[in-house]
Formats: sequence, structure tokens, C-alpha cells
Amino acid sequence: MSRPKILVTNDDGIYASGIKALWEAMSEIGDVTVVAPNREQSAVGHAITVSDPLRVEEVIRANGFHGYAVNGTPADCVKIAIQALLEDKPDLVVSGINHGSNTGNNIIYSGTVSAATEGTMLDIPSIAVSLNSFEDSDFTGAQSVAKAVVLKVFENGLSKKTLLNVNVPSIPENEIKGYKITQQGNAVFKDRFEKREDPRGNTYYWMTGKMIDPDLEIDNDQKAVSDGFVSITPIHYRLTNHDFLDELNSWDFS
Amino acid sequence: MSRPKILVTNDDGIYASGIKALWEAMSEIGDVTVVAPNREQSAVGHAITVSDPLRVEEVIRANGFHGYAVNGTPADCVKIAIQALLEDKPDLVVSGINHGSNTGNNIIYSGTVSAATEGTMLDIPSIAVSLNSFEDSDFTGAQSVAKAVVLKVFENGLSKKTLLNVNVPSIPENEIKGYKITQQGNAVFKDRFEKREDPRGNTYYWMTGKMIDPDLEIDNDQKAVSDGFVSITPIHYRLTNHDFLDELNSWDFS
Repeated sequence: MSRPKILVTNDDGIYASGIKALWEAMSEIGDVTVVAPNREQSAVGHAITVSDPLRVEEVIRANGFHGYAVNGTPADCVKIAIQALLEDKPDLVVSGINHGSNTGNNIIYSGTVSAATEGTMLDIPSIAVSLNSFEDSDFTGAQSVAKAVVLKVFENGLSKKTLLNVNVPSIPENEIKGYKITQQGNAVFKDRFEKREDPRGNTYYWMTGKMIDPDLEIDNDQKAVSDGFVSITPIHYRLTNHDFLDELNSWDFS
Repeated sequence: MSRPKILVTNDDGIYASGIKALWEAMSEIGDVTVVAPNREQSAVGHAITVSDPLRVEEVIRANGFHGYAVNGTPADCVKIAIQALLEDKPDLVVSGINHGSNTGNNIIYSGTVSAATEGTMLDIPSIAVSLNSFEDSDFTGAQSVAKAVVLKVFENGLSKKTLLNVNVPSIPENEIKGYKITQQGNAVFKDRFEKREDPRGNTYYWMTGKMIDPDLEIDNDQKAVSDGFVSITPIHYRLTNHDFLDELNSWDFS
């Protein structure tokens, strides 16, 4: 095939290190357009902007990085890129490289994953790539992984309405143990709220917490990454709990 | 059992008509606490607020309505209510009554559904209730439905990690044809972006669009509501596409 068209976005914003690393990696494979939030949009989940207008600004960074910054969410970026900015529909949407893993229950909060979800909803094969570190880390390993996964997707195609959620361990590239196809686990943030008083005597709260993973013994996404493997989970948004339909049908509402 | 403790929230904000109608209906069943966004938060999906502090303000409206307004998302409201504001864990979280249905693929954008999701993630039975009308409608039918569903949930319990997504047709109560247990359908907003110029000559975009439902012949959520039935869909967040695991395992990453 001719050089594929790749749309790159993220949720850490267009000035993050991770998106620049992803742009660099994808540019070796195809013609890349970057459309990303103009500021950090972590934990926005699948938010879209319906009550405010969206604006788009060109951004140029060092080493030839060029993209479009949008005053919206990751899902907004994918929508406006495909439906207003790009001349042709892209062949692939890649979101990341996120600073921090997106695994378990936490993926429902993830802007990175939601950008890839938006791509699949628009019938474009989509991938989310995250690095298991909140530091401004070495993205070399994650770049190689992103390239390998993207080439496999171009080779094999993706199941309709299904994205790949890729998580990369934050270790030197030659220490990565391999790839594991995983299931979404139960990793979750155990939140608490820290109550404080501002200088005028008014109360406010900070949400804080730490990640817990109740079933690290099962072969799931966060477990794979913690063990030094790249985790690839196929994600879709068919949310009906079919196992519960029969019982609900037995409830008598008459 | 003694009077149950019910947490009421929404995404249209604490000043909406729908949440007042829900508060009224739930007060007939249990002791209600309202914790809701201080302004409209539609389409925020499962966003949470991690980079800003949250503030909580008491709100009193006519007829004894009393609640707490939070400068955050619906998911924030459920988290802070359960983890900081309420003395005891509630027996139930009810979100709504939303102005507009939440069906098909669109539920991933829904703040109403995400509040119920947050409840289930905190292991509390949770229900989302939406009325199929964007007008400031008559909520009488939806109030009766909410009461009926809540009483059934207290009678039968809910499957762990599963919420009920309830959609009510916007027709007079005595014309509602009954209840249907449904599956999440494919209803989706077909977006487009309207490009405009502001008074200073700068470009901006409005997202707009209309709902389409590619499979109205199948027995799904939006179909039931359009046909005059109450739709009840059991929703969970196990997002792994198991059907695709085998194929992915056959990809050779070595």
C-alpha cells in the first residue's frame, strides 16, 4: 500500500514529551497529522465539548514537529480532525504515548483510551499506547512497541469497533520480556479526599489516592506490565451485561 | 429494612428540573441526600477532576429541596459524597432524571450513566434514569418509573459491578406501554462541525449533529423507548473483546 495516513493525538496535550515521541515513531511508517488538546486533559474520560466552541491553532515544536492544538478533549480532537480538518479519512488513529499506564477499571477515566475509542466509533482502526511511568521517561522502548503494533495492525486489520490498548513497561528496551495479549483487569484507584482550608477560611478538597490491583495473580493488563511485558488488550464498548438479562426479565414490573 | 439511604445526583446540574423531580420521588422511599454538579455537565463522560480542588456548597430550592453543589463532574460528585461528605455509605445511587435519553453508543459520553458507573465501582447498587426529551418536560411518568425500579432493586438486589440504565419515553404516564429489558443498541450521534468566524475574524467550530440508530429493527434500548416502552439495560464495564483474543494471540510479535 502507499504510505498510510496516521492521525496522532493524546490526552497529556500537544506539548507533552510522549506525543512528540509518538509523532517521531509514526513518521517512520506513514504521513502523520497531529491533532491534540492544547493543554493536559488527563482523566477526562470520554468527555466531548458540546456547550463551547472549539478553536484550532497550529503548533510547531523543535525537530520538525508540526500539529494542531484544540481547546477540547481527546475525543473532540479525533472528531474535529476527521470531520473538519483532514482532507482524507486517516488509515489509523494512534493515541499517546501516555505518561502513566492505562489498565484495569481505570481505562474508563482515560482520555488516551477514549481518543482511540472515538476512532473506532468512526470506523478507523485505533490504538492507545501508554508507558507505565509518570516521570518524563525514556520513550525509546515505547516507540519501538508502537511501531511494531502499528505494522501488525496494517498487516492483519482490526476487529470492527475494537481498539488495542497497549501498555509498555518503563524499563530499558532490551529488558522488555515480550508481548502478552491480556484482559482488562481490576486495577483501580482507591481514592480519598484531603480536606483543606484556603487563605480566606473556605474549605476545599483534593482528590488523591493510589492504584490497587485486587487480582494481580490473574493474567491481566497491569500484571503483564508489572512483570515486564508489553500488554495488548482488545477493547470494545458493548456494555450490556448479558449474564444478567434473564434475571432482570424475571422481575415483575406489571 | 429501615428507611434506605439514597444518594441522588445528575449531570444537568443541581438547578435542573429533572433532579428535583427525582429527589421528590426518592423522598417517598428513603432518606435522600443530593450531591450534584453546580452547573450543567452533559457529555462529560466519565471525567474526574484531578488537577483542580473541589468545593462544596449547600443549595436550598423551593419545597424543601436541599442538596450539595460541587464544582466537578457527576463522577466527582459520587466519589466525594461517598468518600468525604456522607456519614454512612448509601444503599443506592440514583442519577437523573436526565433531560434526553441515554441509549446506544452514546452512553459512553453520558455523565448521567457515569455517575451510576462510579456508584457500582464503589460497590453500591446504582441506577441511571433518563427521559427521552430535551424539553423541560413533565417528569411524572419518569418519577413513577424511577420509584418502581428502585423498589425492585431493593427487593432483588443487583448483580455486582452492574448498573441499570433506565430510559423513559416522554409520553403521558398512562400511555407508557410497559417495561422492556433491553440491550445497548447502536444509536449514535452523527456529528458535523459548523465552521464560523468570530467578530475578530478568528475561526471557531461548533459540534452539532443528530442521533441516528442503524438497527432500529433489533430489540434494543432506543427502539424500546421510541416504541413507547420503558427500557432497562444492565450495563457493566468489562471491556475486553474476548472474541478477538485468539486472533491477537496468533499475531507473531517475536
